[in-house]
Amino acid sequence: METGRLETFADGVFAIAATLLILNVRLIPTADCTSLSCQILHAWPSYVAYAVSFLTIGIIWVNHHAVMRQIAQADRTFLMITVLFLMVVAFIPFPTQLVAEHISGGFDDAQASTVTYGITLTLTAVMFNAVWFYAARGNRLLHADADPRAVRGISRTFVWGPWTYLGLTIVAAISPYVGAVGFASFALFWVIESSVFGRDQQAPGVEP
Amino acid sequence: METGRLETFADGVFAIAATLLILNVRLIPTADCTSLSCQILHAWPSYVAYAVSFLTIGIIWVNHHAVMRQIAQADRTFLMITVLFLMVVAFIPFPTQLVAEHISGGFDDAQASTVTYGITLTLTAVMFNAVWFYAARGNRLLHADADPRAVRGISRTFVWGPWTYLGLTIVAAISPYVGAVGFASFALFWVIESSVFGRDQQAPGVEP
Amino acid sequence: METGRLETFADGVFAIAATLLILNVRLIPTADCTSLSCQILHAWPSYVAYAVSFLTIGIIWVNHHAVMRQIAQADRTFLMITVLFLMVVAFIPFPTQLVAEHISGGFDDAQASTVTYGITLTLTAVMFNAVWFYAARGNRLLHADADPRAVRGISRTFVWGPWTYLGLTIVAAISPYVGAVGFASFALFWVIESSVFGRDQQAPGVEP
Amino acid sequence: METGRLETFADGVFAIAATLLILNVRLIPTADCTSLSCQILHAWPSYVAYAVSFLTIGIIWVNHHAVMRQIAQADRTFLMITVLFLMVVAFIPFPTQLVAEHISGGFDDAQASTVTYGITLTLTAVMFNAVWFYAARGNRLLHADADPRAVRGISRTFVWGPWTYLGLTIVAAISPYVGAVGFASFALFWVIESSVFGRDQQAPGVEP
Repeated sequence: METGRLETFADGVFAIAATLLILNVRLIPTADCTSLSCQILHAWPSYVAYAVSFLTIGIIWVNHHAVMRQIAQADRTFLMITVLFLMVVAFIPFPTQLVAEHISGGFDDAQASTVTYGITLTLTAVMFNAVWFYAARGNRLLHADADPRAVRGISRTFVWGPWTYLGLTIVAAISPYVGAVGFASFALFWVIESSVFGRDQQAPGVEP
Repeated sequence: METGRLETFADGVFAIAATLLILNVRLIPTADCTSLSCQILHAWPSYVAYAVSFLTIGIIWVNHHAVMRQIAQADRTFLMITVLFLMVVAFIPFPTQLVAEHISGGFDDAQASTVTYGITLTLTAVMFNAVWFYAARGNRLLHADADPRAVRGISRTFVWGPWTYLGLTIVAAISPYVGAVGFASFALFWVIESSVFGRDQQAPGVEP
Repeated sequence: METGRLETFADGVFAIAATLLILNVRLIPTADCTSLSCQILHAWPSYVAYAVSFLTIGIIWVNHHAVMRQIAQADRTFLMITVLFLMVVAFIPFPTQLVAEHISGGFDDAQASTVTYGITLTLTAVMFNAVWFYAARGNRLLHADADPRAVRGISRTFVWGPWTYLGLTIVAAISPYVGAVGFASFALFWVIESSVFGRDQQAPGVEP
Repeated sequence: METGRLETFADGVFAIAATLLILNVRLIPTADCTSLSCQILHAWPSYVAYAVSFLTIGIIWVNHHAVMRQIAQADRTFLMITVLFLMVVAFIPFPTQLVAEHISGGFDDAQASTVTYGITLTLTAVMFNAVWFYAARGNRLLHADADPRAVRGISRTFVWGPWTYLGLTIVAAISPYVGAVGFASFALFWVIESSVFGRDQQAPGVEP
């Protein structure tokens, strides 16, 4: 099967999951804040959570792009693994909302929400690895002329994902605030890495 | 008419219906649970319902894919049947939410929610059969060179769908918990069947 | 400009507007209904409203399809008219919810909700006419070899739309229940008309 | 990398962000209004806010269209800048809801909501400039045969965007109502400008 319709479906899920995040940005009236401007300012964790999750899904989209360029065809197993992967990606808005609402609460609430966020992103990274390594193992679904260097490059980068998120989840369990900064920094790292080092360089998997 | 724009529209509905499911994943504060971590753990029926419905819509998408590969063109009746089919698919988030919120309630509530879920999936299977058999009857809309073996294979598999879901709905009316496990098992069966037997085999309807 | 990306955007709005309708299907606990099964049964106006609006958007999608097949290119004015048209289509979920929640209330509430629904659909039909006649006037944006019979056929059918919806809106102002049945019947009429007369006939605008 | 999948993703975000706006159109029962018809009439700021934001996103879509026609390829930095741009576009529903609910409240609330709206649109315009000038600087990502006149035309129009929105934001801080009228007028200006001057003229970036 060609991968065209698979990419359309995946892009749909990425776009919707990212755009739905805005529904979690909400003002929550508190005792301290009676004016609207105060409430808007105090909702900053919502905005940060929105930005971090939007960027994270955006990075997943950019990387999925790079992965699919190496892949020539899909079998039913690959479709199913992709559905499982998208299922975890589309789950991200839920823990995002938890973090947005509870990070500035007590320690226990901040911990519970950031750990849930971390577990979701760890699973996302695990499933993304499943998508990639199912396709790449023995060049099962790759283009006949896939560049071995690009393939090894993706493999080498991807294996770090789950461990990084697992590590950040453990950090969040110990110190939720440090964990939350970690999730945000990891997303920013990818954006900046691409912006600085990716400049003037074509997207991965593309021959000049 | 070509089927390209039809597939784009259908993929859009599948992707949105699946991704909207996350809006039903919500914490519901109860008397037993005051801490956030307790609430997150007690919301497990939400996560299971989310996963089962996401996988079910994912399987429908994979199968719709296989069906559309056999179909060469569309007439207005086919478009309308497809709209009716998508109408039922896009309805799935509603009974999913009912089950997520009421499966751990009393017998009557669990019964009402799982039976509603079952009726919705039975109708989905009925409409999917209508889509397929309208196109396949007398090769009305099929490719001139459609493989008769693949066509008979789809026909044989599809007719079981409504009866299986009707059976599970009756089971849910008698024992909601067994019915709920049945819906989940049926979705898992398809995922595993594809993962184990579909491996190294191309997606259906695709010539090598 | 080619019309490809315009159709993708329009199809996205149609698919999302139709799928979002499910968010309006909600159980509203009332004094009469304490059991879940009673609430599920009493929510039937929600299901009917969902179905009527989903079918209406589906019919708009099918007809937009037919229109775009006659159109060869787009200018900026055409893009803007299409954006205005989509703005009205994406508004449909709001009056749908009003009707679902208030049709079984008192006369005044039923009247206010069905008249709002009617005004929205009248505006939708007006904007759809604007889309078509802007493109068709003097063959401005049509294919050089557009079939004049097909073009006249669309023009003749389309001009009835706003008047029909305006008429139904006036009926709804006098008798909301008759008006609501009228909106539902008009949607069903289109589905059945296509199913019975469209069979074995190719979609409009397609040469054999 | 080709820009096809980028446009699909962007169109998805535009379509979803615009269509989600309808979720913000809600009746808010007040002491003055007990009848449904009164509530529907009093919700007019919701309708205006919906229309202004839908048109604004529609105009962004039309302009993004024009921009992408000049662009031949994408590098990773361009993808990331586009993700940041879409992140701000998908944020628009939030301040839209604030304005819809608070413009008819007291001065402070009207000010806080319109200024938040203005800041969001200013950032949108800034990011849209970043998208364009990253691609256009030294013809980095443009088509080899891009028309220099069209490129300069876009550059000249775009630089005004952030300043106009910044100016309107300052106006909104002084007089929220004048600012709100300004945002609406600016959207209408673009629609009318296109409708009157764009007629019979092909969309930008298209050779005859």
